[in-house]
Amino acid sequence: MFAAEWAPPAERHPMHIKVLGSAAGGGFPQWNCNCRNCVSVRAGTPGFRARTQSSLAVSRDGVNWALLNASPDLRQQINDTPALHPNPRAGLRHSPIKAAVLTNGDVDHIIGLINLREAQPFSVYASDRVLATIRANSVFQVLAEPLVPRIEMALDQPFQLEGGGTDLGLTVEAFAVPGKVALYLEDKSSTNFGSREGDTIGLKVTDPLEKKSFFYIPGCAEIDEELAGRLQGASTVFFDGTLFTDNEMIEQGLLNKTGARMGHISMSGPQGSIAAFSKLGVGRLIYVHINNSNPALDDNSPARKAIDGAGWEVGYDGMEIRL
Amino acid sequence: MFAAEWAPPAERHPMHIKVLGSAAGGGFPQWNCNCRNCVSVRAGTPGFRARTQSSLAVSRDGVNWALLNASPDLRQQINDTPALHPNPRAGLRHSPIKAAVLTNGDVDHIIGLINLREAQPFSVYASDRVLATIRANSVFQVLAEPLVPRIEMALDQPFQLEGGGTDLGLTVEAFAVPGKVALYLEDKSSTNFGSREGDTIGLKVTDPLEKKSFFYIPGCAEIDEELAGRLQGASTVFFDGTLFTDNEMIEQGLLNKTGARMGHISMSGPQGSIAAFSKLGVGRLIYVHINNSNPALDDNSPARKAIDGAGWEVGYDGMEIRL
Repeated sequence: MFAAEWAPPAERHPMHIKVLGSAAGGGFPQWNCNCRNCVSVRAGTPGFRARTQSSLAVSRDGVNWALLNASPDLRQQINDTPALHPNPRAGLRHSPIKAAVLTNGDVDHIIGLINLREAQPFSVYASDRVLATIRANSVFQVLAEPLVPRIEMALDQPFQLEGGGTDLGLTVEAFAVPGKVALYLEDKSSTNFGSREGDTIGLKVTDPLEKKSFFYIPGCAEIDEELAGRLQGASTVFFDGTLFTDNEMIEQGLLNKTGARMGHISMSGPQGSIAAFSKLGVGRLIYVHINNSNPALDDNSPARKAIDGAGWEVGYDGMEIRL
Repeated sequence: MFAAEWAPPAERHPMHIKVLGSAAGGGFPQWNCNCRNCVSVRAGTPGFRARTQSSLAVSRDGVNWALLNASPDLRQQINDTPALHPNPRAGLRHSPIKAAVLTNGDVDHIIGLINLREAQPFSVYASDRVLATIRANSVFQVLAEPLVPRIEMALDQPFQLEGGGTDLGLTVEAFAVPGKVALYLEDKSSTNFGSREGDTIGLKVTDPLEKKSFFYIPGCAEIDEELAGRLQGASTVFFDGTLFTDNEMIEQGLLNKTGARMGHISMSGPQGSIAAFSKLGVGRLIYVHINNSNPALDDNSPARKAIDGAGWEVGYDGMEIRL
């Protein structure tokens, strides 16, 4: 499929990854929130940085890009990211965005698709249930098929990423992670709120030519044995950084729900992600999807020191990584 | 209902109006557009100013606000508008936004509602058909009833604006204007694409205490006799400024549709809004919902001179008016 063996490139072409948005749903600050973090970032307090909602962009060649999730802030994110502007030499209508890959049906991960209207061809990749949600919501008809095909991702089957007539030169593998169906789709009468395997997925994105890959897992309830095995020895993982402690939203009086109830593992504690990853030998660990309640949003907090000390990075909007 | 006759206020309290977004759907620049205007605004060319999508905010007291339309850029618009930030003395969760009034079902006018989640009470006012669209799209379930009641606006029946337990001290009257159903809801097999009276409405917002009012009509296909009669002698009108000429998108090679086909009157020409309003004696005329193709987005254009010469203003994000 790829001819690396026969025609090795003269120089390395690193894979480009950009963090378009590093906050959880609602963003930072959140529109109606007066928690310490939100008040501080609105006031411009040193150590606090505004963040838009959860999305990455990835490119093998720095020219054509795929979005990993499409946040409600996507229009602002595109404006703030020159690499995602249309090429002025490519005709009256153009976009370097050729695909969007969705990890679940949360509004903070799918509503950005609405911004990609105006008859521009690209591909939407998602699980069967997320595609069903998109089909059932008429607002997404602003993306007219067949110009914008909806492509179902089967779990554990790597596929070549393409869209708008372009092969992005990347393979993607979607895999189920422990999680929960999106809040607005919860079935309160059902066990686990009607969640099914595949409602929350992680992605492994690979550049087969350079034999580099990274994982993107913005929502995850638990690092079970299967997931730990998959991530063992990975070079780079972007991971669910929603909460620092499981009960921080309750303790701060913001919402009467634990992280476990929301389908999000916390950073700290014996069941947390810092502990779970300490044994996995991952090269680079980056938190994304950070909730406004998370004390790690304060660069000068003890929580941030603990994260730094454990070898993690806290993602921020505009963060760039080359693999 | 109001006691102005018996207890006149010691001083005038002007009604506050803010233009949150002055562009049509897609905003300015539009994500995938290389037209002269979009290239110029991305390049920072003098005379071009970026604009977010179509929305106003209005308040009688400068404390509690109603949105007129909820654009996909609403999170950014709230961040950029301190008056819409939560009051830090009002508890952990608060918003001065108490209501959103929708003029049609276009995604650029309704998707912003998604940003108003997180269990904050406010009211959504819209026509029966727009409410039906919102009910049929599960993504809007992030606004849980009864916390966020959906209130049907009957045409030509002024009502008191309220939400989140607050009387905003304003009355609103919705009235049908010539127009078209939203693009993604078009029925191609039907006359006029399945549009019905009330799919596009205008709003008259009144401060009964000060006896001041203004009109907001961001989408309008034609100024017929009925509408002309209604607007005659108005003090202030925010009006559909989508296109300068009916065929500008075709001439620029952007889209094979006239303004008439899209349900938007143009500014210029014998059937245009400048000509139609020239006889109506309106005090202040402000264009909003301006499409990226409109030459009036260039402050130094002949189109802009013509508009200025006819006594119109071109709305911009952050524009403030007190009545």
